[in-house]
Amino acid sequence: MPRRILLLIFCLSLSVPGFCQQTDTGSIKKLYDHIMLRGDAYENLRHLCKQIGPRLSGSDNAEKAVIATAAMLKKAGADTVYLQPCMVPHWVRGAKEAGNIQLSNGNKISLHLCALGNSIGTHAAGVLAAVIEVKSMETLHLLGRSAVQGKIVFFNIPMNSLYLNTFQAYGESGIGRWDGPAQAAKYGAVGVLVRSLASNEDDYPHTGSTTYNDSFPPIPAVAISTKDATLLSNLLQKDKALSVWFKTNCQMLADKPSFNVIGEIRGTEYPDEIITVGGHLDSWDLGEGAHDDGAGCVQSIEVINAFHQTGLRPKRTIRAVMFMNEENGGRGGDAYLAFAQSHHEKHVFALESDEGGFTPRFFSFDVSSSSFNRLAEWKPLLYPYGVYDFVQNGSGSDIEPLKAMGTSLAALHPDSQRYFDVHHAASDRFESVSRRELLLGAANIAALIYLVSEHGL
Amino acid sequence: MPRRILLLIFCLSLSVPGFCQQTDTGSIKKLYDHIMLRGDAYENLRHLCKQIGPRLSGSDNAEKAVIATAAMLKKAGADTVYLQPCMVPHWVRGAKEAGNIQLSNGNKISLHLCALGNSIGTHAAGVLAAVIEVKSMETLHLLGRSAVQGKIVFFNIPMNSLYLNTFQAYGESGIGRWDGPAQAAKYGAVGVLVRSLASNEDDYPHTGSTTYNDSFPPIPAVAISTKDATLLSNLLQKDKALSVWFKTNCQMLADKPSFNVIGEIRGTEYPDEIITVGGHLDSWDLGEGAHDDGAGCVQSIEVINAFHQTGLRPKRTIRAVMFMNEENGGRGGDAYLAFAQSHHEKHVFALESDEGGFTPRFFSFDVSSSSFNRLAEWKPLLYPYGVYDFVQNGSGSDIEPLKAMGTSLAALHPDSQRYFDVHHAASDRFESVSRRELLLGAANIAALIYLVSEHGL
Repeated sequence: MPRRILLLIFCLSLSVPGFCQQTDTGSIKKLYDHIMLRGDAYENLRHLCKQIGPRLSGSDNAEKAVIATAAMLKKAGADTVYLQPCMVPHWVRGAKEAGNIQLSNGNKISLHLCALGNSIGTHAAGVLAAVIEVKSMETLHLLGRSAVQGKIVFFNIPMNSLYLNTFQAYGESGIGRWDGPAQAAKYGAVGVLVRSLASNEDDYPHTGSTTYNDSFPPIPAVAISTKDATLLSNLLQKDKALSVWFKTNCQMLADKPSFNVIGEIRGTEYPDEIITVGGHLDSWDLGEGAHDDGAGCVQSIEVINAFHQTGLRPKRTIRAVMFMNEENGGRGGDAYLAFAQSHHEKHVFALESDEGGFTPRFFSFDVSSSSFNRLAEWKPLLYPYGVYDFVQNGSGSDIEPLKAMGTSLAALHPDSQRYFDVHHAASDRFESVSRRELLLGAANIAALIYLVSEHGL
Repeated sequence: MPRRILLLIFCLSLSVPGFCQQTDTGSIKKLYDHIMLRGDAYENLRHLCKQIGPRLSGSDNAEKAVIATAAMLKKAGADTVYLQPCMVPHWVRGAKEAGNIQLSNGNKISLHLCALGNSIGTHAAGVLAAVIEVKSMETLHLLGRSAVQGKIVFFNIPMNSLYLNTFQAYGESGIGRWDGPAQAAKYGAVGVLVRSLASNEDDYPHTGSTTYNDSFPPIPAVAISTKDATLLSNLLQKDKALSVWFKTNCQMLADKPSFNVIGEIRGTEYPDEIITVGGHLDSWDLGEGAHDDGAGCVQSIEVINAFHQTGLRPKRTIRAVMFMNEENGGRGGDAYLAFAQSHHEKHVFALESDEGGFTPRFFSFDVSSSSFNRLAEWKPLLYPYGVYDFVQNGSGSDIEPLKAMGTSLAALHPDSQRYFDVHHAASDRFESVSRRELLLGAANIAALIYLVSEHGL
């Protein structure tokens, strides 16, 4: 009996992941070699960034991206490519914003700013008011109405540079952006400035979603660059009576129809068991959405491409999903769950890549501890390709709704040091992505998806 | 007895590294916090790159960099700062090179090229000859004199993109650059073109040292950009009779005096036991030497700065060394060993950072297996700061001479994916360095140096 067949019988007799190590090692190397030598992810990303550009939900570009990625999935060799409808919010920035610091001596200093996503525009004359700076939400509450009424609240909460994982700093300092306008409105503020959630000091303002509280009138809100935030804070030390003026032209229009884009390779043995690998197709409107999250989209398409080109047939169905509207609504993720539930789909595993196209470092999971222990056996298979750790620590916002179905969830965590230099800013351009780093992410995702498709969880 | 003193006694009673974990953890966090919040490495690098610029051995800029880094070491709080003399080769590029492909139909296509370091210049008219392309050194030898005589040999050996560690690809494909001119001259070639040792496809030519063989006349040699190499290779398929012309204006002048720059913090308990931490101060002349190796220099200075600013006194002497002439001679490293031997210095440990200012991933060592086992106990102390592995796999070229004294050696290995995009090219600029990535490297170096200074090996 040839050695190959002996090995096959040996493998089939085992249900514990990690035991078919020789076959797995070979298949993973095939996927890796294909992606690093002939992967399309980088050129697909160039297309998304340079031929289409910013892809905010509801925009014409978002619809162009739907069509383009459906074509990419077909070209990648998906058995089935289809669009899954969802209604999305349609926020538009309008004409470019303007703003300045007006010192007591009459001098004016221009600000680098942009409206926060989902925020309302100012009146035609803009907002002009004195500024009260706060370094935490607690300070705002302590100051209360007497100090805040009629003023612009300036949330100056820098990202904590001590966290190795910059997402931890983002999670902590982000409160000013996502809850600041709602909280400031409660105390009668007339506008909000937010220090950009950025890990570097430069002139780019970084946008991102904010929310309002229905009990209070919404107020206009802008992000200013980190350099301007430092400047304004320093000026406020010397000139407490300075004012800030800004004008935004954004508005929320009626919801629009849009789509998740889906491409599948049907599983050979358990076709009803679905493995999702995805990123989000929408991006903010200022940059090209290269790292956030063109990278996750083209990596997911690359998984389909790599299976197809290497001739590896997955046992379970692999589905690449370009989720729509992660940035300012999450409607794509919600629609994906709703469809899965109403069609009684069986979702065994879902993985999201939404932390940029940087060199992969680890995978996080949101799975049972028994599943995690089984997954951990695969770590040595990925180590040669750059992923060195698995942790139990959540997944991604588009796939998180699937938790309601008991799906095992995961996320790729690439090196996070540069992500918040460009996140939600005009600097999130194709040129900020390294081809090798992007492809390495795709290769490690493909390897994990392969292992789940072979062995289940 | 206060708990702190109990702990101290407990620690003093142990000689195995890793056991004073609580003290070590606290000290390492102090060093990390200082470096990430108030480290000077990024601003020092900006100075080296923008106020000085390229720092090729023997150049005026190299001497300016000697003075500047000596001042940085003083400012960082070194007890003693001094210059260690060494003679260095003085190669000069001269006027910018030119070259083109001359097709059989008379059309000419300009090439992006640069002379290889240490190479000789062409005659005033340049070199014009037919081209023979080889993809390996073996092919050159098989072709021999009959095919090579009177021609320009084109070493077109791309870096293998399958290696996770790009230095492995550099090591393999580099043979054309460092040995190609010597080998081609043996068969009567009149010049050499080398495909740039770069991991991306763009228009930058990447220089670097080459060598000659004294038994054959030296021939001129240039690197062409990876894009041009692909173009030339394709053109040669269709037009075997094409010629290439190039003109270089470089020459090797007489050796010049220069210096290693050294700054120390004297050890409190074992001042005669020296721990070296270094990078090389010289750079190629095309870029700003930001990653190669301004990064390693400013990280080494940062170690001194962090100990000084946090008030941590090392038990052993810590010596930051800016080695001169790594790029085209290694004279600084040789001089460092010669001084150490003639002064009977006791060098217990040396670490080099010369793989760029990227996010750290692992340390490699060239130590006895018993030392390696002791070092391995420290891995968990570094994991929270990004270094996740220790391997036995060599050190750095400036410190390697110390092996003659039995010194334990080490090197920092940052993420290598982007290094060869910029290495030895005009694109190795300050802007290609991320502040957070650079500082993380410094913090992990400082942590390892601290552990060796506390516990020895």
